Amino acid sequence: MYVLIVYDVNEKRVAKVLKYLRTYLNWIQNSVLEGEVTEGQLTEIKSGLKKITNQKEDSIIIFKARHKKWLTKEIIGQEKNEISNFI
Amino acid sequence: MYVLIVYDVNEKRVAKVLKYLRTYLNWIQNSVLEGEVTEGQLTEIKSGLKKITNQKEDSIIIFKARHKKWLTKEIIGQEKNEISNFI
Repeated sequence: MYVLIVYDVNEKRVAKVLKYLRTYLNWIQNSVLEGEVTEGQLTEIKSGLKKITNQKEDSIIIFKARHKKWLTKEIIGQEKNEISNFI
Repeated sequence: MYVLIVYDVNEKRVAKVLKYLRTYLNWIQNSVLEGEVTEGQLTEIKSGLKKITNQKEDSIIIFKARHKKWLTKEIIGQEKNEISNFI
């Protein structure tokens, strides 16, 4: 499934959260990653995030779509990640 | 349609971009807004953003889905905006 994650965490944890999420997803903008993962991987991601973040201070939003075709993406200005081939 | 916008703009323009987008969408996290808009409103939003941002420095990503039912949203940690009723 297609997953989009946006995070707003204490700056002490920003690098750790980014590094962790990059093992599953593609970085597309400051604090935003996307990618295709399985249900099992998403469960892993959520469990990992719960371990490395502070749920009283941090906020992470996970959007998921069964197929990425339900979502279109458009960029105004700079495309920060040239690798992404999302349409 | 459902629209999700994430922005990464020069700090000089952050407040302006946020204020502008708030006239159409709900703020849900740092640099992230979502909402239901018409095609006409989305055209307006894009045109407004092009005027107030610097396309050589800033990056704004617009995700859109014809129906928000195609997308589910889950939050880990704090929900910054209590008003949102997206399921």
